[in-house]
Amino acid sequence: MALTLHGYFRSSTSLRVRVALNYKGLAYEQVTHHLRKGEHRTVDYLDVNPQGLVPALVTDTGVTLTQSPAILEWLEEAHPEPPLLPGDIQGRARVRALAAMIGCEIHPLNNLRVLNALKTRFDADDDAVAEWFRHWVGETFAPLERRLSNDAETGRFCHGDTPTLADVYLYAQVINNRRFAVPSEVYPTIMRIFAACEESEAFAAARPENQPDAE
Amino acid sequence: MALTLHGYFRSSTSLRVRVALNYKGLAYEQVTHHLRKGEHRTVDYLDVNPQGLVPALVTDTGVTLTQSPAILEWLEEAHPEPPLLPGDIQGRARVRALAAMIGCEIHPLNNLRVLNALKTRFDADDDAVAEWFRHWVGETFAPLERRLSNDAETGRFCHGDTPTLADVYLYAQVINNRRFAVPSEVYPTIMRIFAACEESEAFAAARPENQPDAE
Repeated sequence: MALTLHGYFRSSTSLRVRVALNYKGLAYEQVTHHLRKGEHRTVDYLDVNPQGLVPALVTDTGVTLTQSPAILEWLEEAHPEPPLLPGDIQGRARVRALAAMIGCEIHPLNNLRVLNALKTRFDADDDAVAEWFRHWVGETFAPLERRLSNDAETGRFCHGDTPTLADVYLYAQVINNRRFAVPSEVYPTIMRIFAACEESEAFAAARPENQPDAE
Repeated sequence: MALTLHGYFRSSTSLRVRVALNYKGLAYEQVTHHLRKGEHRTVDYLDVNPQGLVPALVTDTGVTLTQSPAILEWLEEAHPEPPLLPGDIQGRARVRALAAMIGCEIHPLNNLRVLNALKTRFDADDDAVAEWFRHWVGETFAPLERRLSNDAETGRFCHGDTPTLADVYLYAQVINNRRFAVPSEVYPTIMRIFAACEESEAFAAARPENQPDAE
């Protein structure tokens, strides 16, 4: 039984898991659920993941794992080579903090169901929704840029010269930003690291447009 | 040099770290930053944490750690006993997923700066803000309740009969919920686990009202 990833081409959290699977050289099947058509709410999928969210990863022993931060830590423990976390405890704390800046402070505020809630609850129009998206990116990308440009640990990637989980989160977020025309020139270090990710096949193969369900 | 926690009595992410420090029997100093008065934006604190957010933990070697998920994983690695993660890889994935449901899907949508943004951007009144808060709690507490009540792994706590990081997140969220009158009777398993946490001195000592800066 191979690994099976339940995801959606445009889902930024699914993209994170695809990058990690690719980077670790793991074969996986993709089952896609079209979020805008509500395919993640079908009875069949609720059997796999009762929360009805993507991504979910079904392991080779048939266990369903949910929540991308937990899936990524599981991948790191089950398939430690090549690593996506540094070998030292302080480095791991730094990488996890950089990842959490994006995973806990940007993405949760900007995913589809939240943007929809702004429209239905507050009558937000498309411009106001786009402004909201850009606001929360900026609130965290500004200090992230400062930190990446100041810290001695930053290298070709967020932490040294090989990718870590921090790059996985950064890459997915920068791709997501394009949908709302987030300015990128004010984040030279972030964009330099994004470009380094793009040169890695593991990252590029995970892009939304390279998925079987891409539109 | 002892551990120093920069926090705020009412901050639910600071509360998570306090619980873990207490549970592991670690001595720590608290430096408090009054968020409503903007004390986390002072020059002195920006020197400690350029992002100007709490919590931040300064380690015994003088390194500043930020982002509660990263701080909690660091505490687990640096001070593994007593553990807040299960010994098996599948259990760890389950605990981290339960924690991420709260840490990535509820708290980010409901913290002070987001609620303030709803007021300034969309003219939301207090009722609309409280409704927003309760909506996102319900969106995740409903599936969390189902999962905790169905899974064989659930015990006295979220995962077995001793506390894990999942309980740390659950405890902080339930306390936070009280500020917006979130109904609790529809979550009997969550509330049973919350009550079990309350009986542990490590959890109770971390409550907002037991902090030096409590109002």
